[in-house]
Parts: sequence; structure tokens; C-alpha cells
Amino acid sequence: MKVTGQTWEYENKPVIIGTGTIVGPEEGEGPLAEDFDYVYDNIRINEKTWEKAERRLLEEAARKAAENAGITEDEVQFFVGGDLMNQIISSSFAARQMGVPYLGVFGACSTSMESLAVASMIVDSGGAKYVMAGTASHNCTVEKQFRYPTEYGSQKPPYAQYTITGAGCSVVSDQGDGPSITHATIGKVMDLGIKDPFNMGSAMAPAAADTITKHFKDTGRKASDYDLIVTGDLASVGLPIAKDLLKQNNVVMDGTIFDDCGLMIYDLTKQKFVNAGGSGCGCSAVVTYGHILKRMRKGELKRVLVVATGALLSPLSYQQGETIPCIAHAVALEMGG
Amino acid sequence: MKVTGQTWEYENKPVIIGTGTIVGPEEGEGPLAEDFDYVYDNIRINEKTWEKAERRLLEEAARKAAENAGITEDEVQFFVGGDLMNQIISSSFAARQMGVPYLGVFGACSTSMESLAVASMIVDSGGAKYVMAGTASHNCTVEKQFRYPTEYGSQKPPYAQYTITGAGCSVVSDQGDGPSITHATIGKVMDLGIKDPFNMGSAMAPAAADTITKHFKDTGRKASDYDLIVTGDLASVGLPIAKDLLKQNNVVMDGTIFDDCGLMIYDLTKQKFVNAGGSGCGCSAVVTYGHILKRMRKGELKRVLVVATGALLSPLSYQQGETIPCIAHAVALEMGG
Repeated sequence: MKVTGQTWEYENKPVIIGTGTIVGPEEGEGPLAEDFDYVYDNIRINEKTWEKAERRLLEEAARKAAENAGITEDEVQFFVGGDLMNQIISSSFAARQMGVPYLGVFGACSTSMESLAVASMIVDSGGAKYVMAGTASHNCTVEKQFRYPTEYGSQKPPYAQYTITGAGCSVVSDQGDGPSITHATIGKVMDLGIKDPFNMGSAMAPAAADTITKHFKDTGRKASDYDLIVTGDLASVGLPIAKDLLKQNNVVMDGTIFDDCGLMIYDLTKQKFVNAGGSGCGCSAVVTYGHILKRMRKGELKRVLVVATGALLSPLSYQQGETIPCIAHAVALEMGG
Repeated sequence: MKVTGQTWEYENKPVIIGTGTIVGPEEGEGPLAEDFDYVYDNIRINEKTWEKAERRLLEEAARKAAENAGITEDEVQFFVGGDLMNQIISSSFAARQMGVPYLGVFGACSTSMESLAVASMIVDSGGAKYVMAGTASHNCTVEKQFRYPTEYGSQKPPYAQYTITGAGCSVVSDQGDGPSITHATIGKVMDLGIKDPFNMGSAMAPAAADTITKHFKDTGRKASDYDLIVTGDLASVGLPIAKDLLKQNNVVMDGTIFDDCGLMIYDLTKQKFVNAGGSGCGCSAVVTYGHILKRMRKGELKRVLVVATGALLSPLSYQQGETIPCIAHAVALEMGG
């Protein structure tokens, strides 16, 4: 691995040899439904509590990722995972069930790419053969923990986002077929003073813009080197802000498609309840591992940059009057690279 | 880096070139007081809330570690940190203040060695020159979050542990003077069915025993290859259990001193309020970075294995009747290796 600025360049090009994506019923009604391995028809995921539901999603996504990679869960040498729950219980309990060495990570919704970046580093530098990265979110665990009891049915402003219910895992290997991971750009914490915990898109946009700018600077690449650059998740409010900030940074975003996982997973014209779009740890994980990698394997996309964004607040930091620190980690994927 | 079983062997021997340790008044009355960089005389750490106090400890430990390493905070290329707070706000807010690329990690009290293992991997494999690892805990943030409001002054059973107030950071580099990091053994989640959240020592002992056993198996080393093996933190209840479990695993622990950070930081005969001993993310961090590394630099210890243990529960997982999943990550340190 070679470090330039904030960017890691993987010299042995670790490969994603298998993925698993499991989602809830609302994501199953969105435009990417066909791309997921399994869609639950009930938001309880056949469990008694929201937290057990979230954990189950992650456990099943892990199992599916191993299966799709053609290995047993036992063969996974390290599991790198995290989630939005206090003390990342979904990941830790899933790791208990898997019974493999485990590194817990936390980057709020950026956990998807943080875990993939760390997993790729272990493979790239260590001779580990199979390392799994994964994360999950559930709409109701997050609502309950970060906002109000789900029974309240409280209303939200139109700029709020909707936490997706789903889990995504990937198996990274030192050899095999599939998209390779070429770079990861590790973000700095950015905070432009936004305090409204419903306005995540605006809060996270500066972090996304900063990480994309640094990625181009560190790698010498430009937007047109990518067929797709996706943030996860800025949604309809944050994405235009990120575009404006990139313009201010003199970063030209022409020659590529610049989209957002939170906008891709739902049909915003029909699924009005999602307001500005999707969010949550699971969102960029299932969109990347389900949808984007499928398109890469089909040859529709060659180079993709996934820029996962996270809002690093807690209900307590908000209650104590703190602003919202945000971060974005970017991972560059390449097919046949 | 070479991977054998659960163990990473760092081939370029990253070095700890500087550390910073800041503690509260109760740790300042313990036997290791002289080893810490700064001791606060008030548990509020001159802040208005417990959470701001914890964050301040971490920010100051980071500043001190950079200073002691002879670098500026700006020169830190990556900060790997975590803590016990929901959404690890102490680390994320400290990372905002530092303004460097940040990877959040979580392993409860094992975060000290998890962050050091990951930081060492970045240096070992990446050509990064300066990577910082750090963690913090505050007695009152943890009491409030995991148990009862601090104002209650609720009583605890004698087998309970006392979360230390303190933060420890280290700067890992690819060259320089100081103890080198030779191995890290990444733990599996172990759960032997303990449900009592006051009985952490018993819950975590199997994880410590498992990781030590795997470390010896993977490296071909034995206890007598180390001058000191320390767990962090099993305290007076958990350490004897770990010894018994190791005996059952046919691991001979003769020829070394087998101690625990939670027993070393306080004088249990005088500081009765700590019950079975210390705990918390900060405990193994300040004992390792303050006390143990000082002894290594003086030539009193050549090889040390630090086995940081973490209980991966949340108040919610406990309330939902779950048992306590635990983990232990071990890092091997060597002077003049």
C-alpha cells in the first residue's frame, strides 16, 4: 500500500469476490429491488425487536456474501464491521455468531466504505485471503435511538432523510474475479456549524466535497476518469450543495455521472415518505454491493468512486448544543483493472 | 505484514515514538501517578459536562503525544480512535479539533489495542510516517450512560469495576527510537453466557484467555518469552478466571509476570471505592502508554504483551435479555527489537 496525502493506493489490487445484500420491504419497492439478494416482506424481519431485526439482516448478509464468494463463513479470516447502534451492537453480535476475528469500526453512515477500506488494507498488506466488510441499518432502530419512539409517528421536515432497512457485506480477497479496490481516501472531520439533526444532507455535503477534492489531488485523477461517482447519502438536499462546494474548490465534475445512493434506492416521486431520500449505514452498502457491483460485473461501469458520508453526532452531543461533525471516506473500484 | 491465524506480524517493526497520558484526580492518587503526563485535580476536568471533560482529556493527550514525539499535530497523517460513548463522540470531536484524516473504531475497552493495531498496520504497510492511536474514558460519562445517573450515587457489588478517568495516545512511526510493535492478535467475540453488566471481569476473562492462547499458537511464542503480560481490564475477579482458563487450555503462564492494568492503576487496599479494580477504554491506554512504555524505555522490560479486553454490550442489549459478548485484542511490544 502506498500513502499519498489522505489516500491509500492498494498495490496488490484486492478484489471483491462476493457480496450479500438483504433489505426490508420499502427498499424492495424501490427501483433497485432486483439487485438485492433477498427482500423481506415485513419490517420486523421476523424478529421481536428492531435491534434483533437489524442484527439478523447483518448476519444474513454476511452468510450470503460468503456463499456468493464460494467460501464458508469459517474461512473468513477477519470481519470488519460497524453500524449506527450505540456500541455497534448489531455488528458485534453478528461477529459473535460468525465466530471469526473481529474489528469494530464506526463512521456513522460512512462505515460502509471505512470497513471496506480497512478490510482491503488487511488483504493488500497482509496476505490475508478472505476478509469481510459489512454494515447494516434499520429504519426503526435508528428512529428510536436518534429521534423519537417509533410509536409516536412524529412528522419530519421535507429535507430530512429516511434510514433504509438493509445490510450489505462483501468478501475481499487477494485473488479472484470481480471488481478490484484500487484506492481509499480517508476523510477528515468537517463541521460547518449545522446543528439541526434533521438536516444531515447539508451537514455532510462539505465532508463529501472535501474528500472528493482530496482524492483527485492525491491520485492525479479527475471526474472524467470515473464512469460514476456516488455519495452515500446526501440525498436531494445535500447533493446540490456538494456540487456547489466542488465548483468553489475548482473541481470540475463533468464527464461522469454524479449521483447519490440515497437518491438511487427509492423512487422519490412515489415513495414520498422518504422525504429527501435514503440514509443509514446500510444504504451505501446495499447500493454499492447490490446495484453498482452488478453493473460493473456486467461491464456497464468500469471505474466507480463511492464516497460514503457520515454524521458523527449523538443525541447527547446535540442536546449539549454541539454542531454536527461529519466525515466522508471514498473507495475507488475498478473492473478488469 | 504477515498474517498467521489471527495474528498480524509487522514486518517493518513500527515504533512508538511518543505518547501522551492525561488522567483525573483518582488516578493521580494511585501508584502510577508519576508516570502520567498530567494529572487533573478535579474530575470535571474544568468543563461543564462529563462528555466535554472526556473529550478534553483525549484532545490534550493527543496534543501531548504529538509534542512528545517531536512533531506537530498537523503532521499526524491518520488518527485511529474510539471510546465508550454512544457514537464514539469523544474521538470524533477530538478528531475534528485535530483536523487530520480519521478512522473511528470501537471495541469497548479493547479499543486501546485495536486502535494501536490498526495504526501500526497503516504504518507497517503504507509508508505513512506518523499515525496516532488513542482512546479515553471518564468515570462519570460511563456511569451515566451504562448504569445510573451519577447523582443517584448508586451502590455497586464488590465484583464491579471502576471506570478510570483518563486518555492515552501514541504516535506510531516507521522510524525512530522507542518500543516497536511486533505483533497484533485480533480477537474473536467470546460469550459464555454472563448477563450481569456489573460482572465484567468474569464476562471478559474467556476472551482474554482465548486471545493469549491464539497469540502463542500463531507466533510459536510462550509466556516466558515475555517479561510482562497484562490484561486490560479483568481486575481482581477476572484475572484469576483467565489464569484458570489458560490452565484448561494447557497454556503455561510461568516465567513471566501476568498482571492487569485495572489492578495496577489503583491501590486497591486504600482506594476501596474502585471495588475489583479499574476499567474503561482509558485504563489500558494510560497504563500502557504511561507506565509500561516508560519501563521499557528504561530497560526494565524488554518484551510485553498487552491484552486489552472489551465487553461489547449496550444498555439496550442488556435490557433485551442478551448476554455479554466480549473480545480481546493483544499487541506485542519490544524494546530494541
